[in-house]
Amino acid sequence: MAEILKYVGLDVGGTTMKAAVVDDHGKASPSVVLPTEPTRGQEHGLATMAKAIREAVAAAKLKLTDIAAIGVATPGLMDIDAGLILDPPNLKPWRNVPVRDYVAKEFGLPTAFQNDANAAAYGEYWVGGGQDASSFVMFTLGTGIGGGIVVGDRIIAGKHSHGGELGHLRIAMPESGRLCGCGARGCLEAYASASALVLRTREELAGSRSASRLRGIAVRKGENLTAKDVFDAAGEGDPIGRKIVEDTAYYLALGACAAMAAVDPEVIVFGGGMADAGESFINTIREYVGRYGLRFPASKVQIRGAKLGSDAGFIGAAGCARQLVLAG
Amino acid sequence: MAEILKYVGLDVGGTTMKAAVVDDHGKASPSVVLPTEPTRGQEHGLATMAKAIREAVAAAKLKLTDIAAIGVATPGLMDIDAGLILDPPNLKPWRNVPVRDYVAKEFGLPTAFQNDANAAAYGEYWVGGGQDASSFVMFTLGTGIGGGIVVGDRIIAGKHSHGGELGHLRIAMPESGRLCGCGARGCLEAYASASALVLRTREELAGSRSASRLRGIAVRKGENLTAKDVFDAAGEGDPIGRKIVEDTAYYLALGACAAMAAVDPEVIVFGGGMADAGESFINTIREYVGRYGLRFPASKVQIRGAKLGSDAGFIGAAGCARQLVLAG
Repeated sequence: MAEILKYVGLDVGGTTMKAAVVDDHGKASPSVVLPTEPTRGQEHGLATMAKAIREAVAAAKLKLTDIAAIGVATPGLMDIDAGLILDPPNLKPWRNVPVRDYVAKEFGLPTAFQNDANAAAYGEYWVGGGQDASSFVMFTLGTGIGGGIVVGDRIIAGKHSHGGELGHLRIAMPESGRLCGCGARGCLEAYASASALVLRTREELAGSRSASRLRGIAVRKGENLTAKDVFDAAGEGDPIGRKIVEDTAYYLALGACAAMAAVDPEVIVFGGGMADAGESFINTIREYVGRYGLRFPASKVQIRGAKLGSDAGFIGAAGCARQLVLAG
Repeated sequence: MAEILKYVGLDVGGTTMKAAVVDDHGKASPSVVLPTEPTRGQEHGLATMAKAIREAVAAAKLKLTDIAAIGVATPGLMDIDAGLILDPPNLKPWRNVPVRDYVAKEFGLPTAFQNDANAAAYGEYWVGGGQDASSFVMFTLGTGIGGGIVVGDRIIAGKHSHGGELGHLRIAMPESGRLCGCGARGCLEAYASASALVLRTREELAGSRSASRLRGIAVRKGENLTAKDVFDAAGEGDPIGRKIVEDTAYYLALGACAAMAAVDPEVIVFGGGMADAGESFINTIREYVGRYGLRFPASKVQIRGAKLGSDAGFIGAAGCARQLVLAG
């Protein structure tokens, strides 16, 4: 039996970054969280990444010499092959930050670099909801919708670092579709992200006379109405809440069908806040996939909830580091 | 310099099958075509495949001992991993035909088995419109729309042999979409296949009073109106022909954008009869991709016409055979 190697995975977000040591089996040591504070500049950001990596090693009661490789995941835009952050909207004013080379040089270790949604997908594929799948698609439902595709242990990162941009699968024609943050119309994200769900709820409340507890909640919370409020109301049988949640599952199923027509995966996983709504939501997505997907693959594909929560990103980043080492 | 190996590629269609010897550089010897005659039964079909392979070797002035491996491509439904044709609509009444094992045993050679659209995509990727691409998507436009995806020299065949079913990327919502042959609504194929194009032309003629030379052609040819008639009329400036062709390019661009959101390829190729309409049609697709795709990858992706015509299938099948040999 070979030695069990250890990696550091680091997942950099717009607000915080999270890091931990992860071993060859995907088992994570206690994680550390540091504020990203992008407005303090990219030099500060890089120094914070190095600090998070050191603290993660300490939290695992290890030394840097115990670590075989490091994986770092960041939000796009990026140039994955070049190891660069370009100019991600969540990390303003950073621009052209050589993350991979900085980390590799700082620690003298092989360093993998990946998009955060791809890394989360790889984590779920490796030791989460997609474990044992030969091919895998993950939708991450948040303010936007991210995604990642893994086929044959390989992330489909794309020629221009835009592989698995599953929130921008179009589910409606541009002329009739809802406006997306990307500027186009009809993207899945414009229908089924948490913010789109809240917007659809407001529209439904304004356009309907049905009694709904969401009316009071929407007035009371104003701009702070959340997708969770809507899911909670649906769970309590509220008709508008139920309609919105049902429609959301339908839209997500259309996205899943598109991913299936492209790569026909063994497993599709839904993660992120909304997917925590639980098995009945996943079940509704399954039913719509059965209705609207190509019959044969739709009858076989496994649709599941994610398992790793917000740890998926750093676990997947560590998994990418492990791939580097295994590839020699 | 290593010896240049030679392979036989065989592409089995519902009407004919086509085979040729192809070398390590993708260079094809003269091809042979035999009738498939599926109604004569699958034993006859398998014997014809063997005959086509032998005749291809003879046409190349070679002996079977000169051949390193064989690749066979067939239409779906199929189980690619198992080497089986299941029950393809184009090959009735065949059912559960063990193509790969039959060919491997008959010739005592390593035998690759692949979906015909995937094989055509692999051929174009290897030595056609996608040559030198690291990742590649092909749409094959015919009576239906087929497709294939290649990433890192690997065909995305799918867990259930339904990878690259790009005709069933949905471009409109089910409730408002056109009915597809697969039973669902809104599939790309229901808008942009040759038969969908002809149907849209008839609808346009019926619903419009514009002068159009297509009116006379449609009456004269009746059921035999073709996509080529419409492209020809468009080429001569006919307004209805132009509208139909323009709309077709738009629909195909929406399909391309979906493929880009999934795998972000370096190159997208359009092949099949309609793509022969030439560079101005491809250019219109490009323009719509620029308008409706995610900005960054849409500005970089290369969209091209196919180069290998109806040889792509057997060349790609031979390429799959070559992969078998290279993998050892």
